[in-house]
Amino acid sequence: MKAYEKSKLNTVKRGANRATYDVEKINNILDAGFIGYVSYTYQGKAIAIPMAYGRRDNTIILHGSNANRMLTSLLAVKEMSMTVMHLDALVMARSGFHHSVNYRSVTLFGTAKKIEETTDKNTALLCFMEHIMKGRWDGIREMSQQEFDRTLVVEMTIEKASAKIRDVGVADEPEDYELDVWAGLIPIKQIAEYPIADKGKPENMEIPEHILDYYEQNKK
Amino acid sequence: MKAYEKSKLNTVKRGANRATYDVEKINNILDAGFIGYVSYTYQGKAIAIPMAYGRRDNTIILHGSNANRMLTSLLAVKEMSMTVMHLDALVMARSGFHHSVNYRSVTLFGTAKKIEETTDKNTALLCFMEHIMKGRWDGIREMSQQEFDRTLVVEMTIEKASAKIRDVGVADEPEDYELDVWAGLIPIKQIAEYPIADKGKPENMEIPEHILDYYEQNKK
Repeated sequence: MKAYEKSKLNTVKRGANRATYDVEKINNILDAGFIGYVSYTYQGKAIAIPMAYGRRDNTIILHGSNANRMLTSLLAVKEMSMTVMHLDALVMARSGFHHSVNYRSVTLFGTAKKIEETTDKNTALLCFMEHIMKGRWDGIREMSQQEFDRTLVVEMTIEKASAKIRDVGVADEPEDYELDVWAGLIPIKQIAEYPIADKGKPENMEIPEHILDYYEQNKK
Repeated sequence: MKAYEKSKLNTVKRGANRATYDVEKINNILDAGFIGYVSYTYQGKAIAIPMAYGRRDNTIILHGSNANRMLTSLLAVKEMSMTVMHLDALVMARSGFHHSVNYRSVTLFGTAKKIEETTDKNTALLCFMEHIMKGRWDGIREMSQQEFDRTLVVEMTIEKASAKIRDVGVADEPEDYELDVWAGLIPIKQIAEYPIADKGKPENMEIPEHILDYYEQNKK
């Protein structure tokens, strides 16, 4: 599949020229981060909760406590939606009306199911961790049975999706370009700062490669 | 009012020790950013849409096109919810189970109404802009009547709110501190990079103070 099918639910109306349904572009936006806003309905009200996620092919892996209100609600209704957005710039125009932001955002719609079988659950947790930081899973202490049992793993299969991208400069009214107003972009970026070792043994250890790689790829 | 009243809707259950209902703490989190995830229900499904917002006292100001599907839906149901989250660090523990993130998040519940009266609408748009960048409103070209009429301004009165903050180090199982596993924090930050002038007149202008102030306050 190269593009998600368009339906009334995922068709972008406002700023349709900025929309894409291309699977690769959508996956690139998903892989550039790991915090998504999962929406669910509680007591008749829609609520969005930020959650760490991992992507595996056309699925999204979430996890939490067995008692997590949102995850158990999602499993009850079986349908879910998640939104991810990266802010790239403030767009300062000559008029208030044309002020904007550059961003990459994705909205996903799909079905949620619990992953229970031991091997599947282990693999899903590994994929989740690898999505956030490649190489981390191998060196850490193995999960205890109790930890494993207390963890709820939910897999969302993406059925419909759309992305919106604004990545251009200022777009003012033609007659405004003559005004003496400063206009331009202020680039915005999420960065990692240098890792801080926990007290005790890590203070005397070399920082492992997977941590330094993450820092190098995400520093300013 | 110093704290939001707790009800079933806004009482944090998971990680209740990280929760606060304090108005000042909630406002500080809201003022540290300007992108919120507004939830609404469309065709029976909950969807979260990222929106730029401004805060004024206990209200949140949103705006968009008159045809904006989300804003018109919110105005129809009159109730809304918005979530804001700032990611502060990756918390790398010795076990997978204790990996976490440091963050500051807020979830707001309230009522939505349209601001129509000319002076109120102008003031709301000014507050929105000033929230994102102090001093920007004064120097830009005034809104035309047509732009003004095409803009829908929605004010949310915050009725219930909660914040969750994690700002501590690694919290591993007591027996895991002896393991030879690197643990620690990787601080994460959203930063502004140096402003880029638009082609034409701005290239030969001094960058105005409000833009440089924003950059100075938000650079690495």
